[in-house]
Amino acid sequence: MAYQPKPEHKFTFGLWTVGNVGRDPFGLPTRPPLEPDYIVYKLAELGAYGVNLHDNDLIPIDASKSERERILKRFKKALQDSGLAVPMATTNLFSDPIFKDGAFTSPDARVRAYAIQKTMQAMDLGAELGARTYVFWGGREGAEVDAGGNALEALARYREALNFLAEYSEDQGYGYRFALEPKPNEPRGDIYLPVVGAALGFIATLDKPHLFGLNPEVAHETMAGLNFVHAVAQAIDAGKLFHIDLNDQKMGRFDQDLRFGAENLKMAFFLVKLLEDSGYDGPRHFDAHALRTEDEAGVWEFAKGCMRTYLILKEKAERFDRDREIQDLIGAYKVQDGALARLTAKYSRENAQALKGLEFDREELGRRGPGLERLDQLTVELLLGVR
Amino acid sequence: MAYQPKPEHKFTFGLWTVGNVGRDPFGLPTRPPLEPDYIVYKLAELGAYGVNLHDNDLIPIDASKSERERILKRFKKALQDSGLAVPMATTNLFSDPIFKDGAFTSPDARVRAYAIQKTMQAMDLGAELGARTYVFWGGREGAEVDAGGNALEALARYREALNFLAEYSEDQGYGYRFALEPKPNEPRGDIYLPVVGAALGFIATLDKPHLFGLNPEVAHETMAGLNFVHAVAQAIDAGKLFHIDLNDQKMGRFDQDLRFGAENLKMAFFLVKLLEDSGYDGPRHFDAHALRTEDEAGVWEFAKGCMRTYLILKEKAERFDRDREIQDLIGAYKVQDGALARLTAKYSRENAQALKGLEFDREELGRRGPGLERLDQLTVELLLGVR
Amino acid sequence: MAYQPKPEHKFTFGLWTVGNVGRDPFGLPTRPPLEPDYIVYKLAELGAYGVNLHDNDLIPIDASKSERERILKRFKKALQDSGLAVPMATTNLFSDPIFKDGAFTSPDARVRAYAIQKTMQAMDLGAELGARTYVFWGGREGAEVDAGGNALEALARYREALNFLAEYSEDQGYGYRFALEPKPNEPRGDIYLPVVGAALGFIATLDKPHLFGLNPEVAHETMAGLNFVHAVAQAIDAGKLFHIDLNDQKMGRFDQDLRFGAENLKMAFFLVKLLEDSGYDGPRHFDAHALRTEDEAGVWEFAKGCMRTYLILKEKAERFDRDREIQDLIGAYKVQDGALARLTAKYSRENAQALKGLEFDREELGRRGPGLERLDQLTVELLLGVR
Amino acid sequence: MAYQPKPEHKFTFGLWTVGNVGRDPFGLPTRPPLEPDYIVYKLAELGAYGVNLHDNDLIPIDASKSERERILKRFKKALQDSGLAVPMATTNLFSDPIFKDGAFTSPDARVRAYAIQKTMQAMDLGAELGARTYVFWGGREGAEVDAGGNALEALARYREALNFLAEYSEDQGYGYRFALEPKPNEPRGDIYLPVVGAALGFIATLDKPHLFGLNPEVAHETMAGLNFVHAVAQAIDAGKLFHIDLNDQKMGRFDQDLRFGAENLKMAFFLVKLLEDSGYDGPRHFDAHALRTEDEAGVWEFAKGCMRTYLILKEKAERFDRDREIQDLIGAYKVQDGALARLTAKYSRENAQALKGLEFDREELGRRGPGLERLDQLTVELLLGVR
Repeated sequence: MAYQPKPEHKFTFGLWTVGNVGRDPFGLPTRPPLEPDYIVYKLAELGAYGVNLHDNDLIPIDASKSERERILKRFKKALQDSGLAVPMATTNLFSDPIFKDGAFTSPDARVRAYAIQKTMQAMDLGAELGARTYVFWGGREGAEVDAGGNALEALARYREALNFLAEYSEDQGYGYRFALEPKPNEPRGDIYLPVVGAALGFIATLDKPHLFGLNPEVAHETMAGLNFVHAVAQAIDAGKLFHIDLNDQKMGRFDQDLRFGAENLKMAFFLVKLLEDSGYDGPRHFDAHALRTEDEAGVWEFAKGCMRTYLILKEKAERFDRDREIQDLIGAYKVQDGALARLTAKYSRENAQALKGLEFDREELGRRGPGLERLDQLTVELLLGVR
Repeated sequence: MAYQPKPEHKFTFGLWTVGNVGRDPFGLPTRPPLEPDYIVYKLAELGAYGVNLHDNDLIPIDASKSERERILKRFKKALQDSGLAVPMATTNLFSDPIFKDGAFTSPDARVRAYAIQKTMQAMDLGAELGARTYVFWGGREGAEVDAGGNALEALARYREALNFLAEYSEDQGYGYRFALEPKPNEPRGDIYLPVVGAALGFIATLDKPHLFGLNPEVAHETMAGLNFVHAVAQAIDAGKLFHIDLNDQKMGRFDQDLRFGAENLKMAFFLVKLLEDSGYDGPRHFDAHALRTEDEAGVWEFAKGCMRTYLILKEKAERFDRDREIQDLIGAYKVQDGALARLTAKYSRENAQALKGLEFDREELGRRGPGLERLDQLTVELLLGVR
Repeated sequence: MAYQPKPEHKFTFGLWTVGNVGRDPFGLPTRPPLEPDYIVYKLAELGAYGVNLHDNDLIPIDASKSERERILKRFKKALQDSGLAVPMATTNLFSDPIFKDGAFTSPDARVRAYAIQKTMQAMDLGAELGARTYVFWGGREGAEVDAGGNALEALARYREALNFLAEYSEDQGYGYRFALEPKPNEPRGDIYLPVVGAALGFIATLDKPHLFGLNPEVAHETMAGLNFVHAVAQAIDAGKLFHIDLNDQKMGRFDQDLRFGAENLKMAFFLVKLLEDSGYDGPRHFDAHALRTEDEAGVWEFAKGCMRTYLILKEKAERFDRDREIQDLIGAYKVQDGALARLTAKYSRENAQALKGLEFDREELGRRGPGLERLDQLTVELLLGVR
Repeated sequence: MAYQPKPEHKFTFGLWTVGNVGRDPFGLPTRPPLEPDYIVYKLAELGAYGVNLHDNDLIPIDASKSERERILKRFKKALQDSGLAVPMATTNLFSDPIFKDGAFTSPDARVRAYAIQKTMQAMDLGAELGARTYVFWGGREGAEVDAGGNALEALARYREALNFLAEYSEDQGYGYRFALEPKPNEPRGDIYLPVVGAALGFIATLDKPHLFGLNPEVAHETMAGLNFVHAVAQAIDAGKLFHIDLNDQKMGRFDQDLRFGAENLKMAFFLVKLLEDSGYDGPRHFDAHALRTEDEAGVWEFAKGCMRTYLILKEKAERFDRDREIQDLIGAYKVQDGALARLTAKYSRENAQALKGLEFDREELGRRGPGLERLDQLTVELLLGVR
């Protein structure tokens, strides 16, 4: 029963993840769709904590009011029966052709207005289901053709929409925290706010920055060849890690959304360690899907694998902290100096003068070996289970 | 005499750019070093506005006081004779072995203190030469081994150093604006603050964010496969474009620092257009170098080419704005709607209610063709000089 | 009427290219399907030479015999009316779920057999329409999971299938030349025979290598960050350029299939120059599609743009050859030495001895400037239409 | 004493790998050079089998005859004392400025002749030291500027040189097998024969293809984002795996040459498994270097780590083969069908007819789940040491 997921681990999946039908740009679906309530029961059975959704994962875009009610009733019953939560909700602003050239940033004022309307309705739905985090993934907010001159205007429109919707949330008393989910490209040639940092920078320009944070995704940052652990660290440093999307991906290619830990175990390890060490207590959301080759049995293997690998790595992180040799190496690596620390901690004219007057043995400091090859090798061996 | 660079165009080069000796990781230098004052005279002759420098481009790291004076005197004379300005200065915090594991973010308190000391001295030098922009490129602020657990600590240390140095500048009355220059990797496996957005996000956490902005570089953002024009647009949107580094690069490979326009003419065109349209009036700095294959003659061809291509593209940008067919396409592309714009501009309960009550013809809006293939093709033809 | 495409230019499109409905991994179709015969008439009207197809672009995978006949009759009439040729045909071995884990390389013997059967039938169809080139794009021949241990077996199976089908063609007297189309990834995590070189290497292991050549595609090689012009040069060098797929793409991301020349004009220029200089007389096939944002009008603008840009670049290539300054630079760049050339042309003990006895002025040769910055700048200016 | 390297494991290092002084494009050396004989004794002490070298790793390019003799004598003594072999030798055709625009493919006939001369001398040296494999890494055989029109000529010159040198080897009775080492870029913008496949394709055009094979390198293929295990499989399939360079690397960035297993443990595992399963009995050469941050102690930790990780993964590969559940999954994954296999194994008119007449249950075959998510998860757990 080791590595058995339980609700306290806060593992969540989206309806669209285990419900993915295996379509891709070159191929038809390989799996039939699964009913939302069926997904809920299955996820609960596997030990998950919650299920997340886009509005149209649950309610078809053309659903009538009564259809909506009927679906909602059945879904709520499944939630109640299973004990699963809906910690996060979001809007599908990408599937319908109306969003083909952007939603909040569309050059067409009517599309922008519709996107805001649709998001308010989706926020109503999320609130009704108890969601407290609302994600914005602007998958269509981008461009292939820069001749339209949209890059600057798009940011202004994006800001307008986010400011509007934050007020709506407050006015309705929904209490949402908003999590921006960056992605560099796909489906658009280039997406605005492409990486974690860009979203952090943008939040600083919003009317109510405290309501906005990040939903970083392994695959998205990795597509741009960036170090995901560093990106999450920056979000944590800024107090902005509101949610997280776990999966896996090779650098420099299409969005793969692989099972967590399927590609880069070392990165996954440092990520789990950072999340656990930082006190992050939000959902560990797996935004991934089973390979298109798989049938339904493969889907549940995929879901189990995501959670199990997280728990294995969590245990390894604890072992890393208890490993005397590793901790000694880290201790030696970090050279403290109280006197110097006091000089550089905060500027004063005196500190500056004192610092300017010091002599450093540049050559000696340049020669010093930090022991990183050994530290890294021990980490690899811990990961491989041979220490 | 068309496309003849003049000081009013504000073209600048670094001493390290035209002075690059053609060393690379697999090869020895192919060109002898050039004297700083010789570079100054040559750049002035070619029509440049200014020359930028790291402290050690001019003053060797081990120079004595008198050596420093002698070099400075000769350099200042060259500046005076030639009329060249030094608009930007920066610190070399990457060549010396002492910085091998970081400068401001080193795990060794002594290295961090030395890096701050060295930067204060380099700021003194820059101020003495009249520089008003001070660049921070944290080329060694990164890691290959994440087991040291530095990612979060590094950001705290980085912030401490930048806060300290900003105060020093104010206290000395230097009036610097600080420009952060992001880079995703190389020489480190991963560099902290890897892209423009990350720097924007970080600035929001500093004590005096208004003193800090960006120095985006074409090659750096392009290495991560990001759209550089979009990145610069975000910097402009945030009021943070303090300086710019122009060059060229293929995506997903080592730092090439190619001649401006050497690789991607379309990106270069949109970049020049954005800079000119935005009212950016700072230096157009070419942070590039001649190919290692070239001799000194090739170096000056390289420098001329950078400036000439900028001016050609600037003229094309003006032609783009005067092209009736292109402008009509852009006009049709952007669908205005005053009534809707009023509803979405700012949240009010009334606006939200009104917006929720509207009906949109989703299918009709999804069918509409924006004319982007034609607009892009006309842009290509304008670039190719056949319209 | 400059740059007006005519059949003699041998421009071809696939039914699937202008017929693309604008679906992507995150969005529904934005355009209705077009009838094959309608496409034929339109392409002819625009000046194209031919139209290419996968079996199922024309004949649905489940079509009855009579349905097949009816469709074929109508399609042949359109070809006859319009004068369009079908120079190339291929098999769809990727859309149907049966191919989800490979076709010729599937681990399931039944799928492999079906793939061969389907290809024989598609070869029959192609031959009936007059195609002389048969393309193999193994889009599903790859893997995400290497634990199955398929990499070596897959190559053996691939070879078995290609050998079988080559014999079938000869036995039927179809006279096909087979063109392998490499792609590094997408839809599979990794595709076997990922780049032009890999296909060249594989051909050398086939029973009848002379029947097999390449169909290189701009976007595919570019996804891997490789220089497409160099790849085509290697195919030409080996006598293996049987067909070519023109489009455009940014490096290191999902398959974009952009309009030819939409991204990298310089690469497109050198490619057109290489094709024209090499005497390649096969089709210039545009394997691209209009942006998903576009309506049908945009589709035809896209098609016109592809051909027009090719013709503009072809004219520039001629101008490059007539440009005295450029040609002089190239002349100086290539240092001939008849005596040395004779020594190195072919090994003999005497040549080796003589060569070993020579003295070279290494420093002098290392100092020499090849003039590449200037040559490249003149090329850029020629491309921009300012010389 | 588990995972203790011994000569029978055939681990080799280059003089340039453990001897790397830690220079990079932005920084000075951080470690003093090590004497070749010192390296030999140390490697033997650590359990290595051999040491490889470029001519100039041992003999400076300007060494006099007597200097050469003196160095050689001392080096041979170290080899004899330590029992280390020199299984592979190669030529440095990249450091000296003379090679800045290519060696065998230089546009200057004198440089080409000198490169051949230098290689003959280096082959003499290698033979004297007992090397049987001779590697060609054409690090400077490439271009940044395609306007010179070299791509086709370069291949012809490359072929001329390789043909010449193969004859020289035979004429001298050296018995070398030649291993081409591809790399996509760095130090050149684009290198000719960029990946394993390209080299395989090129070999087919040489006079004596049987003398030529591959020396694939993890980092090089990975830089282009290709699956290295697949590349090695293709080399094995073609009977062309003559040597191998082990290290590690992130995709889409500068050449990192990391410690084997430092980045992607899963790839490293499948690679070790493929090498061991295939019966490859050549050297396991580590073409990597310690991080620039390290001192000499770190260099030896690096070397030990390379070998130790290989041995750990080798043991895991054996465990994988003995794991009943994993092997059952693989067995079920591969669907055999003797009757079909006979039909597709070799073309005959009868086989083709029979195959055309078969009916396949396409939908049933498309529905079947291959169990890959589970197989991959079990592999991950085996790697992590929890099964």
